[in-house]
Amino acid sequence: MEVVQVLHMNGGVGETSYANNSFVQQKVITMTKPIMEDAITKLYCSTYPEEIAIADLGCSSGPNTFFVVSELIKAVNSVRQKICQKSPEYQVFLNDLPGNDFNTIFRSLSIFQNKLREQLGPGIGPCFFTGVPGSFYGRLFRKNSLHFVHSSYSLQWLSQVPRGLENNKGNIYMASTSPPNVLKAYYEQFQQDFSLFLKCRSEELVDGGRMVLTFLGRRSDDPSSKECCYIWELLAMALNDMVLEGVIEEEKLNSFNIPQYTPSPAEVKYEVEKEGSFSIDRLEVTEVNWNAYQNETDLSDAFKDGGYNVAKCMRAVAEPLLFSHFGEAIIDEVFRRYREIVADRMSKEKTEFVNVIISLKKA
Amino acid sequence: MEVVQVLHMNGGVGETSYANNSFVQQKVITMTKPIMEDAITKLYCSTYPEEIAIADLGCSSGPNTFFVVSELIKAVNSVRQKICQKSPEYQVFLNDLPGNDFNTIFRSLSIFQNKLREQLGPGIGPCFFTGVPGSFYGRLFRKNSLHFVHSSYSLQWLSQVPRGLENNKGNIYMASTSPPNVLKAYYEQFQQDFSLFLKCRSEELVDGGRMVLTFLGRRSDDPSSKECCYIWELLAMALNDMVLEGVIEEEKLNSFNIPQYTPSPAEVKYEVEKEGSFSIDRLEVTEVNWNAYQNETDLSDAFKDGGYNVAKCMRAVAEPLLFSHFGEAIIDEVFRRYREIVADRMSKEKTEFVNVIISLKKA
Repeated sequence: MEVVQVLHMNGGVGETSYANNSFVQQKVITMTKPIMEDAITKLYCSTYPEEIAIADLGCSSGPNTFFVVSELIKAVNSVRQKICQKSPEYQVFLNDLPGNDFNTIFRSLSIFQNKLREQLGPGIGPCFFTGVPGSFYGRLFRKNSLHFVHSSYSLQWLSQVPRGLENNKGNIYMASTSPPNVLKAYYEQFQQDFSLFLKCRSEELVDGGRMVLTFLGRRSDDPSSKECCYIWELLAMALNDMVLEGVIEEEKLNSFNIPQYTPSPAEVKYEVEKEGSFSIDRLEVTEVNWNAYQNETDLSDAFKDGGYNVAKCMRAVAEPLLFSHFGEAIIDEVFRRYREIVADRMSKEKTEFVNVIISLKKA
Repeated sequence: MEVVQVLHMNGGVGETSYANNSFVQQKVITMTKPIMEDAITKLYCSTYPEEIAIADLGCSSGPNTFFVVSELIKAVNSVRQKICQKSPEYQVFLNDLPGNDFNTIFRSLSIFQNKLREQLGPGIGPCFFTGVPGSFYGRLFRKNSLHFVHSSYSLQWLSQVPRGLENNKGNIYMASTSPPNVLKAYYEQFQQDFSLFLKCRSEELVDGGRMVLTFLGRRSDDPSSKECCYIWELLAMALNDMVLEGVIEEEKLNSFNIPQYTPSPAEVKYEVEKEGSFSIDRLEVTEVNWNAYQNETDLSDAFKDGGYNVAKCMRAVAEPLLFSHFGEAIIDEVFRRYREIVADRMSKEKTEFVNVIISLKKA
């Protein structure tokens, strides 16, 4: 997961000006782009449909919103030019929770469309854009109405905080010190949510339709392993320090948990096979550094500060959750402490996010 | 046209708190409801489709936004219950210009959906809502993807101010003193826009698909007749007074014209027949008083003030146009004067808007 990607959660909870860094975005897309292109090219070449309906689930709101869609359209257009086919019509559904800022998306649409037409030339078919508000843990589209579904860094968000986490004291997510029932509760919520997601999408996709999903995930079999939980453990540290100092009530912290699950490829595969509607075309795992700007030259000093970058990124994700549970007063202080803790750890150890990417075909 | 209906223009230019008066809305819908119900019932009973895609063009943003759609769904549901058919799935496209406040629509969607489900009972099929930003004077949807199109009080808005109005001095719209070339320019812009509208919709509707369109219109053959132009002539009076007092530059007023055309039923019919894709099922004309609250009891004094009501309503429509041409400074004063002028005329003569309602079927 790259910095900006955390913002692509389903919820519009994570809108921030940080998203408008096209440099970071380009890096992330580069990673999943070959898999997406491969999938949509296979889809297109299987039937040469006259129209292609693409849904981006958890589209967020920012300059990145249109990026994936434009790459998908470009991929199809490149193939159809080579084989001298007439361009299909494109229907693009941009989905996120109702709290997402669709107004901003819609008001920047015509600039995007003009740019796309310019890039693709006069032969390109019409592209119709619609906004679809709602949770993807439920039906969003008509039966058999989609050809391609994309979702990046949204599906690690659960539909709710799992129940039965009362004894996850001092933690805000799964952690090495979490009791087994906590890990079980998280896993079961993931299973329930992800299988519902697959069921809904299988109803909405046409036969032969495809999905490319990128999760924030893990390699290990252990759901409390450091690779996926450490980033939250450091946030818990900041919060626990504030409990010790009496700024936050202990009870308040004990009842706070993050509604996320970062599955392993095996867990994703298991749910797909159990649900039964999709065959797996590709299943891959990659890593990216917590600080997406690492190894980049020509950056201002601000961007070189990894602690700052990661804390800012995580703030965009976590602030709405912290805000609604703890109130506004503590927010600045939490993230000041978090930034220090993160910077310290990043200077001492290798810190990476793990991505699980799966490419599926409706059987 | 009822007070609130002016707000339903395609443009989002007319959003105002005035729209949230469900009393006025109910009155307006009552007028066109039988025609809409008749059309969608005929559509449903011709093929009993498993899904019905409905587009509301110029949906605006307010409590009224969902009203027509819910009436259409109720009409279908009532028929399908009588004949014991399984409910279709509904796809609702809410369209307005990109400046419309879709965020507000989307955030009130779940309340509306719950209410609808409650009213219609457990047998109702899923209803999928999407927002579609863009001008309806262009393609908005995929080919053959719509079953029913509705538009209320939006189509009298032209895509642009007609060209060649330089000699329409002292007027802001067609008026009895407008030179013939001005009337011609307005009419030609209407012809061009409305025939493009019909062409686009004919591509998007399935065979047998239906449209119910309500225009602010006129009965007379004369496009500068009082029934449609008077409301603007009174606004021109207020502006001309301010020119005389030196508050507004004469040149500024001379270059200001309202991008509207209120067609007669014959003009609407002529364009439909010329375009050729649709047959006319019904074509009706009705009137409503400028002050929608007239003849109502149990109203607070504020609502009884016709000048206030009409000026407030017209302000919602005209303010964005005046604002961008004349600047903010004059707005309050224009509408203070307008309110006085309107109140005076309403006390002395019968003041009504004319509605043209047409029900069409794709041949």
